[in-house]
Amino acid sequence: MKENIILTGDRPTGKLHIGHFVGSLRERVKLQNEGNYKEMLIMIADMQALTDNSGNPQKVRDNIIEVMLDYLSVGLDPEKTIFFVQSEIKALTELTMYYMNLVTLPRLLRNPTVKSEIKMRGYDNDTTGVPVGFANYPISQAADITAFKANVVPVGDDQLPMIEQTREIVKSFNNTYNEVLIMPNAKIPDNKVCCRLPGTDGNAKMSKSLGNGIYLSDTKEEVKRKVMSMYTDPNHLKISDPGNVEENTVFTYLDAFCTDEDFIKYLPEYKNLDELKNHYRRGGLGDVKIKQFLNQVLEGVLEPIREKRKYYEQRIPEVIEILKLGTAKANSLANETLNEVKHAIGIDYFNEEFLNEQLNKFSK
Amino acid sequence: MKENIILTGDRPTGKLHIGHFVGSLRERVKLQNEGNYKEMLIMIADMQALTDNSGNPQKVRDNIIEVMLDYLSVGLDPEKTIFFVQSEIKALTELTMYYMNLVTLPRLLRNPTVKSEIKMRGYDNDTTGVPVGFANYPISQAADITAFKANVVPVGDDQLPMIEQTREIVKSFNNTYNEVLIMPNAKIPDNKVCCRLPGTDGNAKMSKSLGNGIYLSDTKEEVKRKVMSMYTDPNHLKISDPGNVEENTVFTYLDAFCTDEDFIKYLPEYKNLDELKNHYRRGGLGDVKIKQFLNQVLEGVLEPIREKRKYYEQRIPEVIEILKLGTAKANSLANETLNEVKHAIGIDYFNEEFLNEQLNKFSK
Repeated sequence: MKENIILTGDRPTGKLHIGHFVGSLRERVKLQNEGNYKEMLIMIADMQALTDNSGNPQKVRDNIIEVMLDYLSVGLDPEKTIFFVQSEIKALTELTMYYMNLVTLPRLLRNPTVKSEIKMRGYDNDTTGVPVGFANYPISQAADITAFKANVVPVGDDQLPMIEQTREIVKSFNNTYNEVLIMPNAKIPDNKVCCRLPGTDGNAKMSKSLGNGIYLSDTKEEVKRKVMSMYTDPNHLKISDPGNVEENTVFTYLDAFCTDEDFIKYLPEYKNLDELKNHYRRGGLGDVKIKQFLNQVLEGVLEPIREKRKYYEQRIPEVIEILKLGTAKANSLANETLNEVKHAIGIDYFNEEFLNEQLNKFSK
Repeated sequence: MKENIILTGDRPTGKLHIGHFVGSLRERVKLQNEGNYKEMLIMIADMQALTDNSGNPQKVRDNIIEVMLDYLSVGLDPEKTIFFVQSEIKALTELTMYYMNLVTLPRLLRNPTVKSEIKMRGYDNDTTGVPVGFANYPISQAADITAFKANVVPVGDDQLPMIEQTREIVKSFNNTYNEVLIMPNAKIPDNKVCCRLPGTDGNAKMSKSLGNGIYLSDTKEEVKRKVMSMYTDPNHLKISDPGNVEENTVFTYLDAFCTDEDFIKYLPEYKNLDELKNHYRRGGLGDVKIKQFLNQVLEGVLEPIREKRKYYEQRIPEVIEILKLGTAKANSLANETLNEVKHAIGIDYFNEEFLNEQLNKFSK
């Protein structure tokens, strides 16, 4: 049944890296191409990015088209997917305001993801304090999701408390006013190993400041350099030493990327990753060899992405037009929901129904 | 210089009473007729009303036209004043979202007016908790004020912390992005005695549930009944007893309403209110007499208002049209500001400037 409405998105605060690819982009392309949906929407969440970047809006502006290029280059397709920019959808801010009346402040701040993010950003110390907009972003996300009546929301499991907050708002709204909003469900990736790709230095997260990320827009040379200097097993000093494949970034990446076909193509002496791992564990397999293999595997993925990116980089007006058209479509969907929401609350005044109601009242 | 932009408004949670008249409506009519402004705007704050009435939206809906009728009947004039309904101005919710990033949660909650309002509504006890929208309404007010670049905001002195919050946001926004927003100033009524009219029972506030308010839409009979049962001096038992004119509601109302002309017209044996008060203090002046006088004074004010209300009650489509036209004007003003705000933040993407910027970036 093609009744699913799928919504995902990203904060445009930097180019997307292969962690995003493995954690979400690849899954989105798969969902897109399976075609089992009525609408598939991808949001560039610039307003949400501003909630913790209010002092650095240039970063947000600079990354709108970068993220669009990343999307298009991985195979997300404007014929199948609606791309839109959050700040252009006025209905989202209106919905947010109405939902804010249905959530108490203590409930909002009880959100464990927001709690840990507040801590991570140092907002919990006395001298700063969390920006209201940042604390409020779970409600804003509820607006994003419900505006499009999305029922399928692919997220990492750290985002489950966000979906929970949205579900509470949907329940509260529908109970208080009328059955307008659709209850969304989180869609967690099946393949747990893929969810969180560490940085090339073994650090849990890829980050621009640590320079430990491989970006979809990196050149062949950058990728090679990063792969060849990757963190492996620090105790695997000589080739003959037995090696550890757990917490060994090269193998974590191989887990996420390589297929049996890659072995046929690049490393026919092994049938599959298990065989390669076993050899590494036994000893006698050097890091350079596995890194070169990983580089080939990654290039198999990244090369076509890079080509496609180049294609679109030469067609910037077309890319902006794609975003503009998608945004127009998203606007018409969100406005429809907003009208239903306002009607359910009863704050639509410039129509026949209200006129008649008031005429009745004052003709008495 | 006609550079002033004046913004005021009311929450549509009930018909307006003579406390509103004395505290603000009368002042607005005066400001309007002095004509010393570029724009004068009056907002029906339905979104704000919903922040603490989310469970009772019918109350808000029911009072939109009631409040408009009150406005028109006191002499606020659509030829001179722009009436609009808050929820129809999408730019307000967008501005609110951007301002929310510039205010920290601790700062927001430090607002003494909000603090006491939270207490008053019982939101501070554990089982409920304040709705996020209610806690946030000072930021929403900043959006209302700045959207129209209002520099003059007539308020009661209890609202000064709201204006202070707006001024902080203006300063922060202009510093962070660009000099777009106009710094507003509170305009406190000169005549302190008029600011707070007590209920007819002597209670500090008029409230619907206490039935102690005199409404602009009350009939002649209702007004008389309420005046004749008014709270005076509980120790003034016999006419001959000396009476207290302080905390004597009849005299508080006379302070707010009666003029020397009223004495010529209805009570020529006294020259003015001071003489009447002196007699009451001395003893020998009965409550019935002063109540009858107050009733005449009030009727002098209320009779023309009542007539005008009747006129407009028979012209509901015209009243709605006035609100609709004003709302359209308000929308165009607010959208202008929003465009400047978005340009200052740098989140306007569908224009020549952004296109050229991106073309430059990717042609390298």
